[in-house]
Amino acid sequence: VDVAIDRLQRVSARRTGLIGLAGGLPDASLFPRTALHAAFARALSGSDEGGSCLQYDWPEGSQPLRRWIAARLAARGADVSEGDVIVTSGAQQALAIATSQLARPGDAVDVDERAYPAALDLFRGRELRLVSSSEARWCAPRFSYVMPGVANPTGVGLSPERIVDLLAGTHAIVADEAYAELRFDGALPPLLLASARDRTWHVGTFSKTLCPGLRVGFLVPPRSHRAAALAAKQDADLQAGTLAQSILAHFLSVDDFDARLERIRKIYADRAGQLVRALRQTFPSFRVHEPEGGFSVWVETDAPGDDVALLHAAIKHGVSFDPGRVFHRSPEPGALSLRLCHSSAPITDLAEGVARLAKAFASGARSSA
Amino acid sequence: VDVAIDRLQRVSARRTGLIGLAGGLPDASLFPRTALHAAFARALSGSDEGGSCLQYDWPEGSQPLRRWIAARLAARGADVSEGDVIVTSGAQQALAIATSQLARPGDAVDVDERAYPAALDLFRGRELRLVSSSEARWCAPRFSYVMPGVANPTGVGLSPERIVDLLAGTHAIVADEAYAELRFDGALPPLLLASARDRTWHVGTFSKTLCPGLRVGFLVPPRSHRAAALAAKQDADLQAGTLAQSILAHFLSVDDFDARLERIRKIYADRAGQLVRALRQTFPSFRVHEPEGGFSVWVETDAPGDDVALLHAAIKHGVSFDPGRVFHRSPEPGALSLRLCHSSAPITDLAEGVARLAKAFASGARSSA
Repeated sequence: VDVAIDRLQRVSARRTGLIGLAGGLPDASLFPRTALHAAFARALSGSDEGGSCLQYDWPEGSQPLRRWIAARLAARGADVSEGDVIVTSGAQQALAIATSQLARPGDAVDVDERAYPAALDLFRGRELRLVSSSEARWCAPRFSYVMPGVANPTGVGLSPERIVDLLAGTHAIVADEAYAELRFDGALPPLLLASARDRTWHVGTFSKTLCPGLRVGFLVPPRSHRAAALAAKQDADLQAGTLAQSILAHFLSVDDFDARLERIRKIYADRAGQLVRALRQTFPSFRVHEPEGGFSVWVETDAPGDDVALLHAAIKHGVSFDPGRVFHRSPEPGALSLRLCHSSAPITDLAEGVARLAKAFASGARSSA
Repeated sequence: VDVAIDRLQRVSARRTGLIGLAGGLPDASLFPRTALHAAFARALSGSDEGGSCLQYDWPEGSQPLRRWIAARLAARGADVSEGDVIVTSGAQQALAIATSQLARPGDAVDVDERAYPAALDLFRGRELRLVSSSEARWCAPRFSYVMPGVANPTGVGLSPERIVDLLAGTHAIVADEAYAELRFDGALPPLLLASARDRTWHVGTFSKTLCPGLRVGFLVPPRSHRAAALAAKQDADLQAGTLAQSILAHFLSVDDFDARLERIRKIYADRAGQLVRALRQTFPSFRVHEPEGGFSVWVETDAPGDDVALLHAAIKHGVSFDPGRVFHRSPEPGALSLRLCHSSAPITDLAEGVARLAKAFASGARSSA
């Protein structure tokens, strides 16, 4: 966690009128508020007068929820039953448990050159050595961390070569599918869990497809690690929230989740298209990566510059973004990069956000402050 | 986690008609279901149409909730403001974060001879050496883990001598107040945080006083450790559940929490009294410790026996309890001990539960299976 960036993001979140292109938040207008409220009412009218949805539960979590998750993974070809699923406090906890079970300080972990910052923070906090997949050939990583379907921040799926490499390897794979169901083409990625069941730690979440506020994710560890992973879950926080799981299970029992996914994919694809067009028109010299899904657009430049100084100037001009440095596996001074999220600002503000960014950029504040 | 005990507890939870004296669950009939449902409705009718209660939040958690927590601690004499409080996924996560910040594998930790099993599991999982407070004088523990007010499982507060010792020391104190507000006399224990602010890690929770299903606890670390503790929280699961915190904050803004505490203290005191009387009448040779608060009664015997074999027999006779061994800092074969919870079984079943236990005990099944 970079203190200066954290401070700037908090400033930007408070500023009225600022167009927020940072943070990777889902569109709050897509949260099914009424249906979740109705699900709570149903949970409270259960056979025990709703006591169980507010009570302690077992560490592995809600059985109906685990059954739902297992059925969806099984439908994609994985050998998964409800007993294999551990409900977690978001995908982040699933990553933290997998990491705690797989690696010790000093161990090597194979991570893409650009990756999810909270995973990088987690790995660094555990004192792991972050190596590239080509370095990994020589240093026996404890695991590869990948985001099939849609990687954060690059927005693209794993290449066929990368998949072949992962499946040809023998070390563990932590497959984080946080955004996989939000590929704009609706094509779910091949499930690594289906091909390498005994060394894949599958991570999923409802934070991107439904809402983050429930804090419900899940982990499917290899069967040989299930008991140890469950003990680690219990040590960490006993169990995921009973109420959140109960609301979610009741919601899923009546919701057409695939229809929901189809609908929100179109909305995010439309937003992404608008942001990409605005960026390409405004910054013709930048490499604007067309995302295949998810919430953001990854932009690289050949221009030297200080992304934090640029963020500082951008906030003054009424727009925010995520500085590229937080996504870098290795600190890499020099060329400017940034992640811009299309997911939560009003869609009609995206072009104006890019125009404000252009003004901040033109102000020269991208050079070191 | 003992696999055999876990299996037995799961069997007993499913058995119809069984009187559950295991697990330390609060009385579900005391959960304010209607008020929590109303709080959800208010959260959803917020200025942003309830989007924020389902969205991501900052890792430290809800500001109104932290303000409420800080005010209560400040009223007890501690120098605590909302910025000092980190909302956690239950008290267990607060313990896990404190432990991760204070101790490394091989380090010594000062723990009572009888202690909360999930803390013991956590410490053992982190490969810490568990030592007594007298051993601690010689081996420089990284911290003392204590439960002021009401210890689990013994049900009593810290002795004045222990408090003097802790305050005379220089190492960190992890003060777990999970049950402190449930002292039957309503006398809150002296706040170690008020006397040793710079080395006390204060842990609290709403799981016992309100309901566990929200999974909301909190940690107040020393100010010098606040940033690192917050980073550890973020690495662990990004944040506690936004919805649960929002429901809780709305609930607390209208609830008379002290009146609630007074009411439920009386109910639990009454239950504890009934259980203690039944145990003393039925097992006159056992040491039945009169609890000063909380959910359970701690029983020690001079009789040799296998508590797991006794649990097995007890379940056959229609009652459950927690085998004493899981509360022991050091494995201690020999004399039988057990924890019996009065908190969640119908109060009218407590005497019958003890009668069933007597039958199981008389069956001789307490000796090793």
